Amino acid sequence: MSDPWQECLEHCVEVATQAGKVIREALKSDIAVMHKSSQVDLVTETDQRVERLIISSIKAKFPTHSFIGEESVAAGAPSVLTDDPTWIIDPIDGTTNFVHGFPFVCVSIGFTVKKQIEFGVVYSCIEDKMYTARKGKGAFCNGVPIKVSGQEDLSQCLVLTEVCFKKDPHRFDAMMANLRSVLTIPVHGIRSPGSAAVNMCLVASGAADAYYHAGIHCWDMAGGAAVVTEAGGVVTDVSGGPFDLMSRRLIAASSRAVAERLTRHITEFNVGRDDADGS
Amino acid sequence: MSDPWQECLEHCVEVATQAGKVIREALKSDIAVMHKSSQVDLVTETDQRVERLIISSIKAKFPTHSFIGEESVAAGAPSVLTDDPTWIIDPIDGTTNFVHGFPFVCVSIGFTVKKQIEFGVVYSCIEDKMYTARKGKGAFCNGVPIKVSGQEDLSQCLVLTEVCFKKDPHRFDAMMANLRSVLTIPVHGIRSPGSAAVNMCLVASGAADAYYHAGIHCWDMAGGAAVVTEAGGVVTDVSGGPFDLMSRRLIAASSRAVAERLTRHITEFNVGRDDADGS
Repeated sequence: MSDPWQECLEHCVEVATQAGKVIREALKSDIAVMHKSSQVDLVTETDQRVERLIISSIKAKFPTHSFIGEESVAAGAPSVLTDDPTWIIDPIDGTTNFVHGFPFVCVSIGFTVKKQIEFGVVYSCIEDKMYTARKGKGAFCNGVPIKVSGQEDLSQCLVLTEVCFKKDPHRFDAMMANLRSVLTIPVHGIRSPGSAAVNMCLVASGAADAYYHAGIHCWDMAGGAAVVTEAGGVVTDVSGGPFDLMSRRLIAASSRAVAERLTRHITEFNVGRDDADGS
Repeated sequence: MSDPWQECLEHCVEVATQAGKVIREALKSDIAVMHKSSQVDLVTETDQRVERLIISSIKAKFPTHSFIGEESVAAGAPSVLTDDPTWIIDPIDGTTNFVHGFPFVCVSIGFTVKKQIEFGVVYSCIEDKMYTARKGKGAFCNGVPIKVSGQEDLSQCLVLTEVCFKKDPHRFDAMMANLRSVLTIPVHGIRSPGSAAVNMCLVASGAADAYYHAGIHCWDMAGGAAVVTEAGGVVTDVSGGPFDLMSRRLIAASSRAVAERLTRHITEFNVGRDDADGS
């Protein structure tokens, strides 16, 4: 039997390529020299424009499919995963990087059927790296197979996370405490590239060994989770439990041993769920 | 009068290109699958080999010049800056990145005469970006002029620093306290690419706005400092005083205003000097 979702994956790569082109063009308009208010406008405008481009292109080809998109949710659309074929879209993952022209900016798209991820596409458009993964068929960067490092010893790991300010002092303190705890293992180093989907692809391609984050969204995780899993890595909840796309929490790692040991260094804090009422 | 150091700069670009090629070849040998002991061997071996390649090539052409190289200093050579024409060399800046294949790994070379930096060359060899800067003649990436963002408001900045474990608990606590202080300004974000010279080039090209670090060496700073300055940025000591190549401390910023404000958020700690006796 032929793969029922292969056509969707092919279309996804095509639309991610187009979206990446729009993002690169927007970057060329030299947002760095704009005033702050214009910058915010450009980011929002580009984010929304890219999401509309992606969704309209997919809808024209697959009119019965459902969508969860960062910008649509921001505009009031529901963020609930159903059994329908569903495209989960982050039009620009790494918005702060986009504003500054820092080189990790991507389009991230995951596709689920019966709540299971069937494929993921992450296009890191400044680097021009197209990561793709189809369930059971491996992960690729620009068509070349990629694999996680396979590292099993956390103390030998290069670890990725987000190092950022949080308005809620409890969450900020927890973030800093987790950082201190992981650093003092000690690990080889901490890197903070600033894009969740790129982070997952770096783990998937063996350029880093683990990534942890609490507070991200399903559209940050869906595309990259497929890439990590198909590259031989594992995705779990930060508690060590099963990965839950709507939980806003993630560990992506080169091995189960690394993921499990990492959970022992991460204090959980409540970040809510993407599919909670009124979220 | 023709530029007396132009020929040196041209030779520097040539030798950095060759060195980058050797580093890329070493990366292809798939160090990620090696045992730790072999990894360390490969890093040391490649680091030393690249430094020998650079120094022997320069010595053949400029036999009277002096050298300060990371590996030579590690092997006991003096690390004292004189008035001689001096090449300050980091054969592989971003060694941890090199071990993991994380994409920021570079060759960094600065050239001083009478203790003043005349030019700098930083070759980010996985990205294939050749940054060059000649005093008074601007900074370039792959031959295209680059400029800092010009940002003057620290709260609008993307800030780079090293987030790493330090054995000395006082230095580790100071690093964490500085991180907390800068984050809570708040800034737009913190990124930790893991290569001092690449960090400076990211500031120089406007992809980030500031970089601070205490504990680096003259070979980490010499090449990049020229690139930042010639791109219109500023380099200072973390105390706000004049930049001192042998001080092991640095702020590189898009503007003096950003550098000055950043000093107020950084607690100094003693890291010694590169030219101290027995350092």
